[in-house]
Amino acid sequence: MSHADWVRKELRELTISLGFIYTPMEEIERRLARVKARMEKEDIEALLVVQKMNLYYLSGTTQDGLLLISLGGKPLLMIKRELERAKVESPIRETVVLKSIREIPALIQSHIGRIPNSLGLELDVLPVKDYFKYQELFPSTKFVDGSPILREVRKRKSPFEIDLMRKAGEIGKRVYVEARKILREGMTEIEFGGLLEAVAKRYGHEGLLRVRSLNYQAYTWHVLSGLTGGIVSQSDSPMGGLGLSPAFPVGASLKVMKAHEPILVDFGTCYHGYQADETRMFSIGEMKQKFIDAYKACKEIHDAVLEETRPGSDCEGIFIKTLNLAGRLGYKESYLGPPGLQTRFIGHGIGLELNELPFIAQGQSYPLEKGMTFAVEPKIVFPGEGSAGIENTVVVTEKGYEILTPVSENIFQV
Amino acid sequence: MSHADWVRKELRELTISLGFIYTPMEEIERRLARVKARMEKEDIEALLVVQKMNLYYLSGTTQDGLLLISLGGKPLLMIKRELERAKVESPIRETVVLKSIREIPALIQSHIGRIPNSLGLELDVLPVKDYFKYQELFPSTKFVDGSPILREVRKRKSPFEIDLMRKAGEIGKRVYVEARKILREGMTEIEFGGLLEAVAKRYGHEGLLRVRSLNYQAYTWHVLSGLTGGIVSQSDSPMGGLGLSPAFPVGASLKVMKAHEPILVDFGTCYHGYQADETRMFSIGEMKQKFIDAYKACKEIHDAVLEETRPGSDCEGIFIKTLNLAGRLGYKESYLGPPGLQTRFIGHGIGLELNELPFIAQGQSYPLEKGMTFAVEPKIVFPGEGSAGIENTVVVTEKGYEILTPVSENIFQV
Repeated sequence: MSHADWVRKELRELTISLGFIYTPMEEIERRLARVKARMEKEDIEALLVVQKMNLYYLSGTTQDGLLLISLGGKPLLMIKRELERAKVESPIRETVVLKSIREIPALIQSHIGRIPNSLGLELDVLPVKDYFKYQELFPSTKFVDGSPILREVRKRKSPFEIDLMRKAGEIGKRVYVEARKILREGMTEIEFGGLLEAVAKRYGHEGLLRVRSLNYQAYTWHVLSGLTGGIVSQSDSPMGGLGLSPAFPVGASLKVMKAHEPILVDFGTCYHGYQADETRMFSIGEMKQKFIDAYKACKEIHDAVLEETRPGSDCEGIFIKTLNLAGRLGYKESYLGPPGLQTRFIGHGIGLELNELPFIAQGQSYPLEKGMTFAVEPKIVFPGEGSAGIENTVVVTEKGYEILTPVSENIFQV
Repeated sequence: MSHADWVRKELRELTISLGFIYTPMEEIERRLARVKARMEKEDIEALLVVQKMNLYYLSGTTQDGLLLISLGGKPLLMIKRELERAKVESPIRETVVLKSIREIPALIQSHIGRIPNSLGLELDVLPVKDYFKYQELFPSTKFVDGSPILREVRKRKSPFEIDLMRKAGEIGKRVYVEARKILREGMTEIEFGGLLEAVAKRYGHEGLLRVRSLNYQAYTWHVLSGLTGGIVSQSDSPMGGLGLSPAFPVGASLKVMKAHEPILVDFGTCYHGYQADETRMFSIGEMKQKFIDAYKACKEIHDAVLEETRPGSDCEGIFIKTLNLAGRLGYKESYLGPPGLQTRFIGHGIGLELNELPFIAQGQSYPLEKGMTFAVEPKIVFPGEGSAGIENTVVVTEKGYEILTPVSENIFQV
């Protein structure tokens, strides 16, 4: 049987039997309508979607290719490698094989009857070299950044998306429940982190966490024990840990975990591209009182954020409120990092990427909206000693919020 | 103790006790000298290194920041977040805190006494939005693509680098040895892949595999059993597998592995950023004869590549030779993928990234050089049935090659 025949006949049924959920046509149509409404407003005639998560969001497939969205015509999916598989995965009906990027102008011309005057590209991630090629291919077209539109459209999640995030949260719950049985004295941080990842994968976690950035690399094995929790590194987070080498100096290390140390586990899970992020504290025997107290403070700050979580609350306002509360609780110098290295956010939008809108952060003065999803993560850091923290992923509902990571908020003591 | 004090006093000793290897000064100096020689030749006055693996290669640190290399002056490391840690990690002595990208022109001016007329940037990965900022900051500077220079310099590995790759290969060996004890009937592909990853991490594998690309995401859990091995997907590889969802439709799936199926495990390991890539076949009970035969053919093609592996051999020539051999062995229609979807390479350069020079591929007519490292991976694919393959990572030596992934090449039958 040819590959194309096999894919056409067998792929859909086989993958559905293995748990695949395909994005329905109506879902894609609603998303495209929101993008087009914004394109119209900003006078962008056509948009070329290249970046994988945007492509998935707007087409349902992540096969190697591009999606053309134009004001007048239907969307066109241009696939470089496996068109037959893309057709199974995407409800978009207009598709074509793209042998070379050089064919794009002719394909657009024949699809919408003209070369657009203005073309949106994802300028926040598109490499310069590719941009030069597009300039050559479209010499009289004005290029605009299409990413702000896509970020705005993606910031409010649909019930379909929230359900996938809920399922990611359920995988996370299983990880934390099993973690208790796995953790033992003498294990290294990375061994523990690796076994947690194995549990998550068994339940369908996709392994990758995604951040929209050239250099920032997300990972699940953020297991920090005792003093490694007090160390800041490359990432814009309250503490980075040691990692395994100067090539990746963040997250779990080969340090052996000892009794009574605070063990912070910040573990994200991914289901059908949608992520849930959460942090819980573990200890072998009872944790030192200093960290139990710090954890209680984190929990109080976390609860204070959720108290304000509803449509209309100002993101920056919530952040400032937590600064004040941390100060009153006696953690001014350790809240969100050591002095001079404190981060300036208490929550980050999450969905297909870990740095989506909204940011509950300094300088981010805009209201929460229904359907927004974010991870709230108060953390307290003592250099040379360790850290404490909690994190949950939530969705803003009509009147408040729903927690998508429903794991016990007690310290997991083994 | 302040974070800075702690890092200055404790970090180096602690990390070395946990297995960290820091890049020595002489190694960095040799690399920088090679870059500067090429800059001189191409008349590039200064180079700003942003991309994380280039930064690591030329400075020894991956802390968030940039490295300035200029023809006249010493290199300058500009660090955005954790300067003290960067100072521990990097032998580069001229360092500065970079609070905002807007400070770069003034920092360069004060460091080398002028604004360079020509400035190299990594245009193959740098986002357009960042490029626009640099254009604004350096209005009379000519920008050139610095990536080809860096790719060229990185293509020949030093003994220090080869040693790190050898250690990555040793981790891989342990994975394959333990894999035999882990594999059992009824396990899903992803469960097996997750447990292999946990083994690798326990021995110091860093979890991430890196590809220089906007959209291509590397991963270790490429476990394909029976018919999933016959499926092509988004990646430029002979077969992609099912994966877990349309968001990540490659690699291991929730399919249960059965007796007598060919089970292909393509597992890369990463040690101090350096990668080793390898593939072996497994089966539960005896594998079907068709796949034993296909595996033997892959092994023959693999050996034929190694026979030609020495300085001076033409990369494209080697590839063409394998095409002919595959045809003679009766695999013209299945070698490197199904008809219409066959890939056009038999080897890819490997080091800090999985798509380095050289490519043993069509259209890549240049000689192998001593110190080049590549993964050779002949694979044979039957749609609807499965696949077979073998892969090793090798370094080109003075007279031939050394295999960096010394795992038994027999089929692992359990």
